[in-house]
Amino acid sequence: MNAFDALMAHARETQALAQVAGRLGWDQETMMPRGAAPQRGEEMAAMEAVLHARRVDARVADWLAELEGTDLDAPAAAQLRHIRRSHTRASKVPAALAARIARVTSQAQGTWADARGSDDFSAFAPTLEEVIALKREEGQALANGGDVYDAMLSDYEPGTTGAELEAMFGALRPELSALRAAVRDAKAPPTLKGTFDEAAQMKLTRKLARAFGYDMTHGRVDKAVHPFSSGSGLDVRITTRTNPDDPFNCFYSTIHEVGHAAYEQNISRDYLLTPLGEGVSMGVHESQSRIYENQIGRSRAFTGWLFGQMKDTFGDFGIADEDSFYACVNRVSDGYIRTEADELQYNLHVLLRFDLERALMADDLQVADLEAAWNDRFEADFGYPVDKPSNGVLQDVHWSVGLFGYFPTYSLGNVYAGCLHEAMRSALPELDSQLARGDTSAATGWLRDNVQSHGGLYEPREVIARARGAEPSEAPLLAYLKEKFTGIYGL
Amino acid sequence: MNAFDALMAHARETQALAQVAGRLGWDQETMMPRGAAPQRGEEMAAMEAVLHARRVDARVADWLAELEGTDLDAPAAAQLRHIRRSHTRASKVPAALAARIARVTSQAQGTWADARGSDDFSAFAPTLEEVIALKREEGQALANGGDVYDAMLSDYEPGTTGAELEAMFGALRPELSALRAAVRDAKAPPTLKGTFDEAAQMKLTRKLARAFGYDMTHGRVDKAVHPFSSGSGLDVRITTRTNPDDPFNCFYSTIHEVGHAAYEQNISRDYLLTPLGEGVSMGVHESQSRIYENQIGRSRAFTGWLFGQMKDTFGDFGIADEDSFYACVNRVSDGYIRTEADELQYNLHVLLRFDLERALMADDLQVADLEAAWNDRFEADFGYPVDKPSNGVLQDVHWSVGLFGYFPTYSLGNVYAGCLHEAMRSALPELDSQLARGDTSAATGWLRDNVQSHGGLYEPREVIARARGAEPSEAPLLAYLKEKFTGIYGL
Repeated sequence: MNAFDALMAHARETQALAQVAGRLGWDQETMMPRGAAPQRGEEMAAMEAVLHARRVDARVADWLAELEGTDLDAPAAAQLRHIRRSHTRASKVPAALAARIARVTSQAQGTWADARGSDDFSAFAPTLEEVIALKREEGQALANGGDVYDAMLSDYEPGTTGAELEAMFGALRPELSALRAAVRDAKAPPTLKGTFDEAAQMKLTRKLARAFGYDMTHGRVDKAVHPFSSGSGLDVRITTRTNPDDPFNCFYSTIHEVGHAAYEQNISRDYLLTPLGEGVSMGVHESQSRIYENQIGRSRAFTGWLFGQMKDTFGDFGIADEDSFYACVNRVSDGYIRTEADELQYNLHVLLRFDLERALMADDLQVADLEAAWNDRFEADFGYPVDKPSNGVLQDVHWSVGLFGYFPTYSLGNVYAGCLHEAMRSALPELDSQLARGDTSAATGWLRDNVQSHGGLYEPREVIARARGAEPSEAPLLAYLKEKFTGIYGL
Repeated sequence: MNAFDALMAHARETQALAQVAGRLGWDQETMMPRGAAPQRGEEMAAMEAVLHARRVDARVADWLAELEGTDLDAPAAAQLRHIRRSHTRASKVPAALAARIARVTSQAQGTWADARGSDDFSAFAPTLEEVIALKREEGQALANGGDVYDAMLSDYEPGTTGAELEAMFGALRPELSALRAAVRDAKAPPTLKGTFDEAAQMKLTRKLARAFGYDMTHGRVDKAVHPFSSGSGLDVRITTRTNPDDPFNCFYSTIHEVGHAAYEQNISRDYLLTPLGEGVSMGVHESQSRIYENQIGRSRAFTGWLFGQMKDTFGDFGIADEDSFYACVNRVSDGYIRTEADELQYNLHVLLRFDLERALMADDLQVADLEAAWNDRFEADFGYPVDKPSNGVLQDVHWSVGLFGYFPTYSLGNVYAGCLHEAMRSALPELDSQLARGDTSAATGWLRDNVQSHGGLYEPREVIARARGAEPSEAPLLAYLKEKFTGIYGL
């Protein structure tokens, strides 16, 4: 076997094992018996050890060295780029540090949950300091003298820097905050009335999943406390949740996760179980979930069709017509919680976290000052104060488990979704009349061909630039949000 | 770390990975999307490669050599015995042969299924010859000059030989065949009337599982085409099936699988994720599933309670009283299929397979003569001829996937169950009055303490001998079956 074939065979087996580890995670959130948790911890750790050993395997470095300078076609070169990145990343972090981070963050998650339960940031602060110190040490190992936060970012969004994001997000923030203030002063749209049978929600949610092109022969829909999508290739599963008072939570969780899952399902089968065979970055992934959920799923045209589906399923629920339903779906409400935020406010939540975590990593902000910094920033952006830490600095699990550099990919995904939406609209002039019939095939087909099918072939920014025909920018997202919400709120 | 701790840490991680691989199998039969099969094949193969590499790891041999002659307590010595056996077994079979067997049997299963579908043994015969040749080669590698069939047996039932089984089964066969003939001439008990709601079956089946001590916080019940139990320690899942015409299929599949699962759940937690932390052999495993299903679950006392449960659940189903219900549950019917056979006939099906597969391996029987040999033997033991190969030589998947030496463990399990039942009855004089209330706790507690909790501590035969207070024998099973069926059939 030549070096390329040997390397790819090794990579393929690693990808297969990574799929197994991922499915353990799915099982844990959907099927696992309650009492199995301690054993599951050991099973996951054993899988992680196997995967780590494969990533740092010295033969990988040998094969890569042997292939240095070889003339390869674009997919083969991209495979090598991914393998090299993963090998280098895994090799840079000392095993002892990686083990310590795993141990500390595993305990820190419990400490965070307790602190959130008792609404006491000071109970979490010492643990957070320890996590930050360890993650900074890891970042320094990865950065090789470069910017620590950028090194962290590259785990989730290779090729993007904090400075780029700062410029992008800096342009968004004042405009979003002003739009949000204007909407707050306007008359609010109606809300849903009544309760919505949960079995009927699940039935309609499966119909919605199929309407957005989710392939049930290579996936399945279950319930989970926090909806997620899991797996690549031929086995991509989603979860959703139901609440009898809020069917939108179920439907838009489903559509969001279908966006993630469709990306994984639609990658070229040539890349199955190879490093190119999964979504290229968190930001591009989020662009798919968000454009499915928001630009398509919450559009005037599609919500017109959904209104009919909901009336057929649930009868009268206090909304008179399609226009009122569209406004109801897109209602902007006060709220502290990122995961419950509407399309207009969501990015303000993320931008806040990006600035704070970057300052923490640069040692420009101390944990002792974090709660006050959070509360000041929240009030400045949203116009009202945080009432308690569980609605503020303690609301997200991310920092407790060491996820720094992850938050900004949510907003980057929205920015990318804005770019893609603009390009898709100009390519598909009949889109609204299709969506009004519940037919998303042109939209999802365009995304499949221009983004999803490529998998890891291009770098994240390049995927978007190729689909858009121009470099990514926050401008389309901003224009879209302004037009949408000034329309709904009659501003 | 000393050699023992290092060896055990390695073994523990291997056990954890084996649990992961096992859960993939569970997922495949219960949850996996249909289209995921090709990817799943690669995932399973990757896990198998990881497990194989760990079993043949040269460090294992070094640690074992270093520990040779060390004074260890009984559990530690037993751990080493299991690790040594697994390492030796994996090291004896050349990797190329193992790979060839995996490839050929994977295809052979499809060939067998097609041949069964078209009722044409000749379409399967060449493939079976190839499988037998490969398995014989593997057996020779394992046997080191000893008996090939005994080497195969030791994969499933360490310490047992074909000669021992031949003696045991030889004593059973004429007696069972004669009893079966006598029953066939007697008046048949009544059958169930009506259809039985499948959701109600599942509800009652969960109640039955709990009544037999299945721990739902460390397990779950799902449906599968072929019921099975899966996993060890803190995550032991079972499956069952429903048929609206035959609720007994559901209930007794569940009780059978609970027997397997309770064994795994009740092993001492000291052995969790170690080689001692799983059932010690197929035969001992089957003794648990069979004693739960038959000696307890189909007893006069327990079926009296089940009759009331079924009446409460389904109303009238054409059975007048507890005695008729007991006879109905234990009805002996003509039939060709092993997996559908009643307690009386089941072993005759297995003994037939044992004799034929042993002759095949010893080259005393050729594949060309197998179908005729099967049909002759069936008619001799059951009193009527086989009508077609799918009801005869093609009915079981086992040989196509290379399982030789596996069949006899089913009957060995029944023999062991007979021994355990005799001992349990004399230890628990109040057993019937407890079972008549649906209370199995004394019976399952006795089995837990005398068999299940030991896990792999003792060799299979020793577990049964210790529980019985005497060497295993087929006599108690035979006495039990004679008493039971002469009673039911008034012989």
